[in-house]
Amino acid sequence: MTERTPGGYTGKILRVNLSDKSISIEKPDDKFYRRYFGGTALIGYYLLKELKPGIDPLGPDNKIIFSAGVITGIPCAGSGRSGVGSKSPLTNGWGDSQAGGFWPAELKRAGWDAIIIEGKAANPVYLWVNDDKVEIRDASHLWGKATKEVERQIQDELGDKSVRVAQIGPAGEKVVRFACILNDITHAYGRNGHGAVMGSKMLRAIAVRGRQAVPLANPEKVREVAKWLADNYKILSLTKGLSDNGTADGVPELNADGILPTRNFQEGQFEGYMDISGQTMTETILVGRGNCYACPINCKREVKVGPPYNVDPIYGGPEYETIAALGSFCGVNDLKAIAKGNQICSAYGLDTIATGNAIAFAMECFERGILTKEDTGGIELKFGNAEAMMTMVEMIARREGLGDILAEGTKRAAEKIGHGAAEYAMQIKGQEIPMHEPRGKVGLGIGYATSPTGADHVHSLHDNEYPAGSLGMEGLKELGILELLSPLDLSPAKVRMSQYHVNWEHFRNCATICVSIPFSHSQILQLVNGATGWNTSVFELMKVGERALALARVFNAREGYTAKDDIIPDRFYKAFNSGPLKDKKISREAMHQALQTYYKMAGWDPERAVPTAEKLQELDLGWVVAELDKPARK
Amino acid sequence: MTERTPGGYTGKILRVNLSDKSISIEKPDDKFYRRYFGGTALIGYYLLKELKPGIDPLGPDNKIIFSAGVITGIPCAGSGRSGVGSKSPLTNGWGDSQAGGFWPAELKRAGWDAIIIEGKAANPVYLWVNDDKVEIRDASHLWGKATKEVERQIQDELGDKSVRVAQIGPAGEKVVRFACILNDITHAYGRNGHGAVMGSKMLRAIAVRGRQAVPLANPEKVREVAKWLADNYKILSLTKGLSDNGTADGVPELNADGILPTRNFQEGQFEGYMDISGQTMTETILVGRGNCYACPINCKREVKVGPPYNVDPIYGGPEYETIAALGSFCGVNDLKAIAKGNQICSAYGLDTIATGNAIAFAMECFERGILTKEDTGGIELKFGNAEAMMTMVEMIARREGLGDILAEGTKRAAEKIGHGAAEYAMQIKGQEIPMHEPRGKVGLGIGYATSPTGADHVHSLHDNEYPAGSLGMEGLKELGILELLSPLDLSPAKVRMSQYHVNWEHFRNCATICVSIPFSHSQILQLVNGATGWNTSVFELMKVGERALALARVFNAREGYTAKDDIIPDRFYKAFNSGPLKDKKISREAMHQALQTYYKMAGWDPERAVPTAEKLQELDLGWVVAELDKPARK
Repeated sequence: MTERTPGGYTGKILRVNLSDKSISIEKPDDKFYRRYFGGTALIGYYLLKELKPGIDPLGPDNKIIFSAGVITGIPCAGSGRSGVGSKSPLTNGWGDSQAGGFWPAELKRAGWDAIIIEGKAANPVYLWVNDDKVEIRDASHLWGKATKEVERQIQDELGDKSVRVAQIGPAGEKVVRFACILNDITHAYGRNGHGAVMGSKMLRAIAVRGRQAVPLANPEKVREVAKWLADNYKILSLTKGLSDNGTADGVPELNADGILPTRNFQEGQFEGYMDISGQTMTETILVGRGNCYACPINCKREVKVGPPYNVDPIYGGPEYETIAALGSFCGVNDLKAIAKGNQICSAYGLDTIATGNAIAFAMECFERGILTKEDTGGIELKFGNAEAMMTMVEMIARREGLGDILAEGTKRAAEKIGHGAAEYAMQIKGQEIPMHEPRGKVGLGIGYATSPTGADHVHSLHDNEYPAGSLGMEGLKELGILELLSPLDLSPAKVRMSQYHVNWEHFRNCATICVSIPFSHSQILQLVNGATGWNTSVFELMKVGERALALARVFNAREGYTAKDDIIPDRFYKAFNSGPLKDKKISREAMHQALQTYYKMAGWDPERAVPTAEKLQELDLGWVVAELDKPARK
Repeated sequence: MTERTPGGYTGKILRVNLSDKSISIEKPDDKFYRRYFGGTALIGYYLLKELKPGIDPLGPDNKIIFSAGVITGIPCAGSGRSGVGSKSPLTNGWGDSQAGGFWPAELKRAGWDAIIIEGKAANPVYLWVNDDKVEIRDASHLWGKATKEVERQIQDELGDKSVRVAQIGPAGEKVVRFACILNDITHAYGRNGHGAVMGSKMLRAIAVRGRQAVPLANPEKVREVAKWLADNYKILSLTKGLSDNGTADGVPELNADGILPTRNFQEGQFEGYMDISGQTMTETILVGRGNCYACPINCKREVKVGPPYNVDPIYGGPEYETIAALGSFCGVNDLKAIAKGNQICSAYGLDTIATGNAIAFAMECFERGILTKEDTGGIELKFGNAEAMMTMVEMIARREGLGDILAEGTKRAAEKIGHGAAEYAMQIKGQEIPMHEPRGKVGLGIGYATSPTGADHVHSLHDNEYPAGSLGMEGLKELGILELLSPLDLSPAKVRMSQYHVNWEHFRNCATICVSIPFSHSQILQLVNGATGWNTSVFELMKVGERALALARVFNAREGYTAKDDIIPDRFYKAFNSGPLKDKKISREAMHQALQTYYKMAGWDPERAVPTAEKLQELDLGWVVAELDKPARK
């Protein structure tokens, strides 16, 4: 085992050019890692330096970067994740996405922090990273096959069942704009359409096998935190719920609070909520639980359903986002159908959030007469039609009929469909909105509007606003947020809460540590110091997060994005007709004011919504200042 | 011993009105302490809330606040300090000053975090705080007496030699504008003229006796840090130097580097540097060492000199600032004369920095013919005249002759003297510059210009810039400042370093923890968490510091201060004629640019040089926003 010098972190980054098949290695110094860490910030560094504004996200000039972080792969729960980034084919702007699993730790154990993929292969290929040995291999025989088959076939031909595979599915091959990347079939880098980017490069998979221990500067510090979680995860209500019922444990509570996204955000309560809950899953179709590297919680689900659904547990089971997106959001209360829809998404490689969103959008268009049976190929595409939902998932994956239009994402689909369809496309900047209702937690609305990825929940206030005294609140308290605010509050105090949270969550996506594990900020600090030998602080970690966000915002500004693009759909400015949030709507004026406050508070130019030169200097990003002056290309 | 509830800090603040003799108690909640901590921030909270802009700092409307911090008095080195604040009679703006000793811990042991003094007594009084019992007592019999006598007399009449006394001397009684407050005779709240404020209120002293242990939430955490220092202070070069030779240990090094303030900042090297060094003091006149509460370092000096100087060790011995101010700055290389000058300052209660500054100013004026023997009362007031220096100290203290003019501070004195004298007044905003040369460490220049107190070194970059790899640098590294910059660098990177440092030092002055103890930021965090039971972070502590500075800047803005007042004297824009810094000058344009960068980086309005509304909101200072709109009264 390599020992870390106290105070020094060293790592390697692999660069693979698919056009000329060149492979090279970069070894950034300790200071690089301390500034750019991994995940979002590392990706931001390379994308901003190396991509020209205005390039086609689906062309050879785009790059796709897989990045673990400095604590990925350490022997502690939460360290199993990594990020992926590229220019998003959904937003034509900044794209990043995160997933857990075992592939990220395997990458670290193979000695790599990140992989940068450039160019475009002439024929289907996959990448084989076998510790230090790296090979671009033919994947023609894998093209078109389901993810399950491809994973098995790669492991077979490499003669090692321990090989971990990150791959796209047939949907990525067909460049469905919201195609995802999956590792171990069940862990999705779902958002922003990176699967389409990988597909456009004809790169089907990255197979990894690592046999090196991840070195630790101070194993005892890491062990202490790991042990705390092992000792407490069955006691803490969040992790107990995750362990018992998976990420869908909270469905009944969300429904009771009137914030379960239902029928394309037309409602906040779903009459069939109990049918699709994590609790019901546990009692009915659940046959196993799964986990990520080093994690005892086992929040992942494995479900089995017989004919006619034929759901195979190897594809795991639906997460909360999937349950809501294919369930309540489409008005579907049939858990087996949702499980089937989930399986299709995993087999073909589709982001379940965007998929459910696209289908619900089409359902609303159908119900409003904007789409007809002629458009749907005879399908009665109404809310609640489980059969139609399952069919549409497959049609999107195969780009068949209406599915081909929806595969462009709801924003582009709405433009194509016309007749006012855009009003029903629940997207921001081109990315479909995840399954969290901003009308009941308005700080989330700020997060949706300002996220550089388009609507995103992995770095926006949501559970932290709701309910009082939640775990997220405890985390915010460590930053000096001493008072809980009403979830409906849009005051400057909420803006501050939102901003601190967003910056911390961006840091989390640089450390690539799981959001669902209730580590305190100081525990995560201990993991970082324990792994690297640094003596850093929560202050510096917050700045890493702020730096990551700054890089992403500048990337977007260069593409022509301004404050005018930081919006939420009009629907959220209308109140529900019933439920706990009846007559409660987000005020358009208050939201505008909150966003202006956000920009100024963040040190951003309020018109371009991008960090000022001085803020960039403060974030140790002096080299980025020149990027502000490059002409926008949107 | 009271036990702290984990997560909760409770304390008491004493309010005494000298006009109507009312005494009251305030008990802020835990959140108040977490936001305003103690020291500068707590003082800022009350001064900004309770003082009207435009009041006379020497009138009854001014208030003077003594404030310890949440970790003052815990059993660990560095915890012996506290702050004092009021509207400064030197600057007509924000004033705060810090000192160590035993009085602050005694105040905490008496159960108090802070004392707010209001109004003005009709006759001389002193305050007697005997645990919970508080009494305003007559001090007519003490008026006019030296500090040594007054301390003894108060202890005698209260019948307790353990009573700790903070007091002004005769110079404060005579409202010398840079009169100081001393505790235990030897620990001075030197800067900003609080002694004059106390004198204007006819409050000679605050005597305190406390018999309550300071409660600790987690004594083990505190013990661990205390033990680390006890185990290491003799090994670490900074603390070893302090222990061996006091704060003047660095004189030879400063001289070698060309940054020993000499002859009113006309030079950076002093031919007699070795004669006035801490090393020479150790070898000649030193008879003892002293310390502050709970500190093993013993950096305080006790010196004894026979006739004709007659220096009494009870007055301690000169610190570095005093040695430079009365020594090299006045061209005096006679250590015994400096010790005598120091004793006069302590006996009369004068800030030694301002005193030395005023005398050097007068010396330069004399040498340039702006002052004559007629003005000086026959004194040959030339640089290097030790006898003249000692005489002038006493004349200032007694407000006699030229001393009466200098007692107004160099800014006002120069205005009165005229004939271009202002050029030689080394002051900023009315406060005399301390003994650190910005031409050799230009970040210090930024700190001088922007300090809300006027020129100040306790929250400005100085040793951190110089030399490379210094202890200060290690502290900055914990905040993400990864590279040392040249001391002559004025780039945005230096501005960032300066800003982070200034914010942290402001936090230090809220925690009122000693700047000379090489605790890491995380160790100070551990002390805070150990003492209070909070689970805070270096991020939150940095925000406390930033908040303290924001309160002070708003206080100044309300008094009419703008960016135009953030200047350094013209002298610093001229290079030395010799020495290591020959021909190195601060560029006026670069400094202007650096200050503009500083404001924007800090989230300050660049014209008013005050935090924007959004920055105030971010600092949880929403209530302060309205203060920005109050008319300036300067």
